[in-house]
Amino acid sequence: MNPSPKPIQNDVLSQKLWHKIDHKTKPLKSLGRLEEIAHQVGLIQESLSPKLKSPKLLVFAADHGIAEEGVSAYPPEVTYQMVQNFLNRKACINSFCDTQGLDLLIIDAGVKKDSKPHPLLKVKKTRRGSRNMTKEAALTLKEVQTSLKYGADVVEDCYQQGTNWIGLGEMGIGNTSVASLWMHLLSNIPLESCIGKGTGIQKISQKKKVLLKVLAQHGRSPNLSSEMANYGGIELLQLCGAMGWAAHRRMVIMIDGFVVSVAYLLAERLYPHIKDYVFFSHLSHEKGHKTLLSYLQVKPLLSLDLRLGEGTGAALAYPLMKSALAFLNHMASFEEAGVSVSEN
Amino acid sequence: MNPSPKPIQNDVLSQKLWHKIDHKTKPLKSLGRLEEIAHQVGLIQESLSPKLKSPKLLVFAADHGIAEEGVSAYPPEVTYQMVQNFLNRKACINSFCDTQGLDLLIIDAGVKKDSKPHPLLKVKKTRRGSRNMTKEAALTLKEVQTSLKYGADVVEDCYQQGTNWIGLGEMGIGNTSVASLWMHLLSNIPLESCIGKGTGIQKISQKKKVLLKVLAQHGRSPNLSSEMANYGGIELLQLCGAMGWAAHRRMVIMIDGFVVSVAYLLAERLYPHIKDYVFFSHLSHEKGHKTLLSYLQVKPLLSLDLRLGEGTGAALAYPLMKSALAFLNHMASFEEAGVSVSEN
Repeated sequence: MNPSPKPIQNDVLSQKLWHKIDHKTKPLKSLGRLEEIAHQVGLIQESLSPKLKSPKLLVFAADHGIAEEGVSAYPPEVTYQMVQNFLNRKACINSFCDTQGLDLLIIDAGVKKDSKPHPLLKVKKTRRGSRNMTKEAALTLKEVQTSLKYGADVVEDCYQQGTNWIGLGEMGIGNTSVASLWMHLLSNIPLESCIGKGTGIQKISQKKKVLLKVLAQHGRSPNLSSEMANYGGIELLQLCGAMGWAAHRRMVIMIDGFVVSVAYLLAERLYPHIKDYVFFSHLSHEKGHKTLLSYLQVKPLLSLDLRLGEGTGAALAYPLMKSALAFLNHMASFEEAGVSVSEN
Repeated sequence: MNPSPKPIQNDVLSQKLWHKIDHKTKPLKSLGRLEEIAHQVGLIQESLSPKLKSPKLLVFAADHGIAEEGVSAYPPEVTYQMVQNFLNRKACINSFCDTQGLDLLIIDAGVKKDSKPHPLLKVKKTRRGSRNMTKEAALTLKEVQTSLKYGADVVEDCYQQGTNWIGLGEMGIGNTSVASLWMHLLSNIPLESCIGKGTGIQKISQKKKVLLKVLAQHGRSPNLSSEMANYGGIELLQLCGAMGWAAHRRMVIMIDGFVVSVAYLLAERLYPHIKDYVFFSHLSHEKGHKTLLSYLQVKPLLSLDLRLGEGTGAALAYPLMKSALAFLNHMASFEEAGVSVSEN
């Protein structure tokens, strides 16, 4: 079944939510963006008292054929090694999830090497790494569909467990290259402006050279499915499918940094109304991200010069959302508290 | 005893901290500002494994004679009413502290009306509201000293209980007026640029008129003590004393919004090296705050258009700091995790 998210707009509920927010014991609008968050989550959950249940941080990991071309500061095997680091609970995202009370799930979406079974691991392998798209299409059309479906499956499992908040992250050596290509293809922003240092590559010129070669090889396709096959990457597509299904299930979706934002850009084309369900956790230090967020006309919640990925920004934004719902659900109104109202 | 904070700079420890941070399993510098936080807190605590202990959010509340002059959107009795709201655990700061696992302490620094004893309340009344400074000095010289001392006393009690992190907030109808005056007096930034809507007053012209009258009445004083007596306000001075002593005790200090930032501006004059211990939680929507933070050459952690006070921004920034120490203390190094290092 294809995801078909519904718009959240509901004028009656919207008005009731603003009434509730505006009568809390605080100057009008003085909680700024937290008020917008509370309002939006209320609409998503169709509730005046929205709550976050079993929040989960999902990290989709996969390898990329293009990593063979020296587009990253790290060798391709680091994808697998970092997955082991996640499973050993010793990576950054583990420490953030532990701190914020988030459950972490690592999805092996397409890592070359297999991991041993582990409580934090979900295996949803489209294939063992995408193909090297400087030479051939990254994926087959069938693999594209499988990727989208697997992403949705992961989210459906979470939904069945009662989860209504997901943070989305990624791990995959070479994936900022794939994301830069997609950003360029979908937004028509010059490739130059879509390429950054990723994990920290010094020779951006090499990265650009490889990406130009890929573009020359595949060009534009008449339909999005062929383009998804040509350009991949596996975790990007699974993220896309995950977002579509999460919106379909009226879950709150917290987007991480550059790569996940690009997956969202693609998801917007596939699933109308998905924007209603999405929050952008942070402005990454990765070069293309600022341009992309402007293009999407969205404002990130945090700006801390992060460029790590793994869902770290999404995890850091979670407590802001928790706080937004806390004030909505637990603060007294002026009347309840016996506080005099503004003279204005 | 006067607070005398020591500089935190320690080249050997600083180098060791950066070594530890740089060898974590992440691209170099990819945690941006969280790395700077971890480093600074390490220096403050003189430790490679700094920890936050018994974190407390302190809200200093007081009344202001100037509130009689119609400088706020709310009547003066709201200070007392909001204190009751805090004690009933129904204000915004209560919901944020509960969400973030912070202990909350309300300090009656100078509220006109007395509250009943309460576990969350500490009574450190300098006097029942400052005098109306359009007519006379807000405080006596003795009351100034008492205020600074009481602020320090509150922090010393926290220190004795093992607290090494304090967030600072305030409540006091009329206190953005007092803060605007101080900002102008200490920075020489034109008064106009120091005045904002506060809790939401519509007639800023009235606020400005009153503040010009106060400036005409008292002018500049040859020494800071006289100026503190002329201009007050009680919770600003107690916040000042609290900051000085917290830095003296090598505690981490999280500053809230406009009013607390102005208290910091004053504290800088009183206590050298205090800057080393301080973090600015957020950029408030209050007009003068952006200018003030630029003047202080500091970068806030959050920017969410808040303008509520109560320490709400400080509480929201707490989880960022917790996360910064979590990565420093719990993430594996490349060597420990068996992850290949960067090829750069």
